[in-house]
Amino acid sequence: MEFIKTEIRSGAYYDSVVLMHLQRSLLEEPGVLDSGVVMGTDANKEVLEQSALLVDEVKAAGADDLIIVVKGADEAQTSAALAKVDELIAARRGGGIEQDYRAKTLDTAAKMNPAAQWVLVSVPGRYAAGVAREALGLGKNVFLYSDNVSLEDELSLKKEAAEKGLLVMGPDCGTAIVNGVGLGFANKVRRGGIGMVAASGTGLQQVTLRIHQMGGGITHAIGTGGRDLSEAVNAATLRQALDALNRDANTKVIVLLSKPPSPNVAAEIIAAARKASKPVIVNFIGYATSMRKVDNVTFATTFDETAQLAIEAEKNPAAETQESNLEGFADGQRYLRGLFSGGTLAYETQLILRDYLPAVYSNAPLDKALSLKDPLVSHENSIVDLGEDVFTVGRLHPMMDNDLRIRRLDKEAHDPEVAVILLDVVLGYGSHPNPASELAPAIVKARRAAEEAGRRLEVVALVAGTDEDPQNMDEQIRLLKEAGAIVEVSNDAAARRVGRLARALNQRGVSPTAATNPPVKVEALNQPLAAINVGLESFFEALTSQGAEVVHVDWKPAAGGNEKLMDILARMKSKK
Amino acid sequence: MEFIKTEIRSGAYYDSVVLMHLQRSLLEEPGVLDSGVVMGTDANKEVLEQSALLVDEVKAAGADDLIIVVKGADEAQTSAALAKVDELIAARRGGGIEQDYRAKTLDTAAKMNPAAQWVLVSVPGRYAAGVAREALGLGKNVFLYSDNVSLEDELSLKKEAAEKGLLVMGPDCGTAIVNGVGLGFANKVRRGGIGMVAASGTGLQQVTLRIHQMGGGITHAIGTGGRDLSEAVNAATLRQALDALNRDANTKVIVLLSKPPSPNVAAEIIAAARKASKPVIVNFIGYATSMRKVDNVTFATTFDETAQLAIEAEKNPAAETQESNLEGFADGQRYLRGLFSGGTLAYETQLILRDYLPAVYSNAPLDKALSLKDPLVSHENSIVDLGEDVFTVGRLHPMMDNDLRIRRLDKEAHDPEVAVILLDVVLGYGSHPNPASELAPAIVKARRAAEEAGRRLEVVALVAGTDEDPQNMDEQIRLLKEAGAIVEVSNDAAARRVGRLARALNQRGVSPTAATNPPVKVEALNQPLAAINVGLESFFEALTSQGAEVVHVDWKPAAGGNEKLMDILARMKSKK
Repeated sequence: MEFIKTEIRSGAYYDSVVLMHLQRSLLEEPGVLDSGVVMGTDANKEVLEQSALLVDEVKAAGADDLIIVVKGADEAQTSAALAKVDELIAARRGGGIEQDYRAKTLDTAAKMNPAAQWVLVSVPGRYAAGVAREALGLGKNVFLYSDNVSLEDELSLKKEAAEKGLLVMGPDCGTAIVNGVGLGFANKVRRGGIGMVAASGTGLQQVTLRIHQMGGGITHAIGTGGRDLSEAVNAATLRQALDALNRDANTKVIVLLSKPPSPNVAAEIIAAARKASKPVIVNFIGYATSMRKVDNVTFATTFDETAQLAIEAEKNPAAETQESNLEGFADGQRYLRGLFSGGTLAYETQLILRDYLPAVYSNAPLDKALSLKDPLVSHENSIVDLGEDVFTVGRLHPMMDNDLRIRRLDKEAHDPEVAVILLDVVLGYGSHPNPASELAPAIVKARRAAEEAGRRLEVVALVAGTDEDPQNMDEQIRLLKEAGAIVEVSNDAAARRVGRLARALNQRGVSPTAATNPPVKVEALNQPLAAINVGLESFFEALTSQGAEVVHVDWKPAAGGNEKLMDILARMKSKK
Repeated sequence: MEFIKTEIRSGAYYDSVVLMHLQRSLLEEPGVLDSGVVMGTDANKEVLEQSALLVDEVKAAGADDLIIVVKGADEAQTSAALAKVDELIAARRGGGIEQDYRAKTLDTAAKMNPAAQWVLVSVPGRYAAGVAREALGLGKNVFLYSDNVSLEDELSLKKEAAEKGLLVMGPDCGTAIVNGVGLGFANKVRRGGIGMVAASGTGLQQVTLRIHQMGGGITHAIGTGGRDLSEAVNAATLRQALDALNRDANTKVIVLLSKPPSPNVAAEIIAAARKASKPVIVNFIGYATSMRKVDNVTFATTFDETAQLAIEAEKNPAAETQESNLEGFADGQRYLRGLFSGGTLAYETQLILRDYLPAVYSNAPLDKALSLKDPLVSHENSIVDLGEDVFTVGRLHPMMDNDLRIRRLDKEAHDPEVAVILLDVVLGYGSHPNPASELAPAIVKARRAAEEAGRRLEVVALVAGTDEDPQNMDEQIRLLKEAGAIVEVSNDAAARRVGRLARALNQRGVSPTAATNPPVKVEALNQPLAAINVGLESFFEALTSQGAEVVHVDWKPAAGGNEKLMDILARMKSKK
């Protein structure tokens, strides 16, 4: 025989930790078989039903009502357990925090430890924005664990924070590591040179712990909350944090982690990451990219790969990308012209250039909208494949016959808008036995023509061959260099070199927009962590166990959690 | 003063090498300033115009007419140069190939060297399919350099080849390396353990030469022609070549390279690559993928990265993926149920599972079409995020409170269709101080319930933590293993493990379809290359300089290149 006794309490606020402990404590009472202590939401009532605890008496409870259900084998024992509810709650409420570390209000707490730069907020969602706003008002950074905070509140909090040079991590930010101390849910990981910004909680944990397991370490790991990368919030926190980590001398590599943002936000974040002076590993979990690496930014697709790439980047910092030297180019010189004999080389070049230039035209374009009207006439930045069928009717392929390319090179060199010409020189069996002997004089002539017209013309030659090819690759390179060409031996490297140069030419005269908001203080990240905790006591305990100085605020909702009174108070506050 | 003299020759066929040499020879005649020798296509006439060689007399020439233009400073010298055209052509036509290596027909050539397994065809497009068909009729593999071959011809050639276990590389196949010998345009690269199949000519060259430059080497590099990966041709040659390289003992790593195929063809190729017993590096140039690696297949985005990944894969062959052991599972057991506390862990798991299972449902799905109707009720393969808002109203997060998960675990264990349950156990500050103490007994109970019902239940636990976390990770792992769980410490590894198992369960009873066509003979690839060359003499020279035995066919179009007669002959042939 089983007996179920229930109680419903309306309009009162209880901390979730208290509710969990109440449920556990009830289970330990004599004769109790099962218990349920939940707010009366539909989902929670369904859970009760699946455990056969949803009796008729509690079905009518609403989302703001606390349901307490006790099941026992003996009716008297079951009733006795239920009667102990207040006693059990009171026992827990004593808590484990000493009075010296307790304050009644955030304001008092801030006075108790003025060094505390961080406020952790884990009160229920509807109260959380108010507490966070109070913290910003006191000049504190905010770790906003609470969920169910409105978008409007998030926007206004982040606006205020940005104007003050403060961070709001969250809402719904489950985890962060600041100067070695974990906030919220966080693993204990080695200190090291990898800094992280993440819009995803367990993602941040998994990447930091895998970095630790693989032997690496973390400077700071900053959470943003899952909505930070939405169109509306536009990565407000991520941008601040990226900027701060870029200025932090201890951080050698930056990791950005998020579920896939909207294409616009993703593009802006990537643009910001490319301006960083450090390697940046980006994992927009499940975001498809067609290029794995661009400048200092590498895209990862899983947490493990992210951790691995970050560690590799810290171990092998890439050579500094050289600034393109623009000296000698005339004002009107802006464009790149690629004259290819190899179709797929032209194709990969266009693919790589997508990350450097807004539009590259071609007779074999990546996208039909970028088709050259006439393959014999270049337009702005152009990559021409001279091995296309239209050019090879009754004519040898340009790998064997340089005539067409030499004529085209001469034409491009006389165009006053052209700054750089890219050529592929494909060696190997079947190709021209000595292409440089014909191309080198043409390069000399082209560069001279430009020079005589008061312009600088850069010719970049991709020499595609091996040291065993019949043409003598070293000699081919020597001839081309002697003619004034810059020589690369990888298509990838050649494309990126001309891409950087053409981008720099395109951006001449564009002055960077000045930042309007004060930057986040890197010192706030790097000083010993001191914090104020408003909400879950377990976060106080986690922080103090890590050696952080914490003051806990004995927070309670205004009006003792009475719904109607609170609504009135909230409305009055918002009218101020 | 400049004089331009012209001549038009109609309806005659000239080899493009002959035309190039004629143009060069004319330039060497006394008093000649420039010359043009081209077929009268619009593009070619435009090129003449850009060099100021397009005079009125040649404007009317058609695409089948040969235009010869000579520009000189002296009228008599210019006319004299033009008068030498036939003499200059005849001088070239002598050619450099000794009579011993010449044949009049393909048939004779095949008899002269019966060991020749390969026929290179580089005659003009409209004649090429006929020559290739003849070669297949003689049981030879075909390297079809010629472009402008119709899709219908490609389809019928590849069908015939497949039925005979032969390869047709091309049409428009510019390059290949067979057993160390380059066909068409090819670089001389080191022999090694990397085999390649490519639908892109200079892409194949760039990857093979970068592999060489980086210290690696090539077994075979097989071209397919650019149209092979179209919907119509459906990767006919690529599939044969992939299969052959997979059976080739010398090939340790396979590279597949192509411009982006259609999604259907791409999916089929990837499926075929995953069945290979070797690492496969895939570069569908510019094809966006959201997952870098799945099983033995890794996606590369540039030629350089492709080369690098292939070399790494050869140096560090991954551990063999273990076959999932299906013993003990009842017939109806098919499904995976993931019960997560970490939202992003659940998200990445779904992402990885996309490569293993057709559909995975969730309350936080990658795609809305895969939404669980009720987050409390699983459907087929399901991944549930128990930290979602609906579960946490007035309830602690499942990283702190295991109650909800334990109840759900029990429920899933009683579902006769469930074979494997995946749990994340997130350690660290803030989380439950000893989650395994509560989860381990629940796992024991769940496994026992399944066992009593005659089923095997696998529980895989991802333990997300570090050795410095407050929970004592080793002890957590020990408790979970003791309870019968399989433990992984990386989300990636856990997801792939359950993915392989669930896939194997889903595929039980499905027998592989038997191959209907004979496989390509690996021995044909690995014996010393001997070939027959029909078309460009330079290919004969390139082959012999690499030590290959080659017979050259003195090919001329039927009817001496007379357009009308040829058309009639071709039509008669096709009716046979």
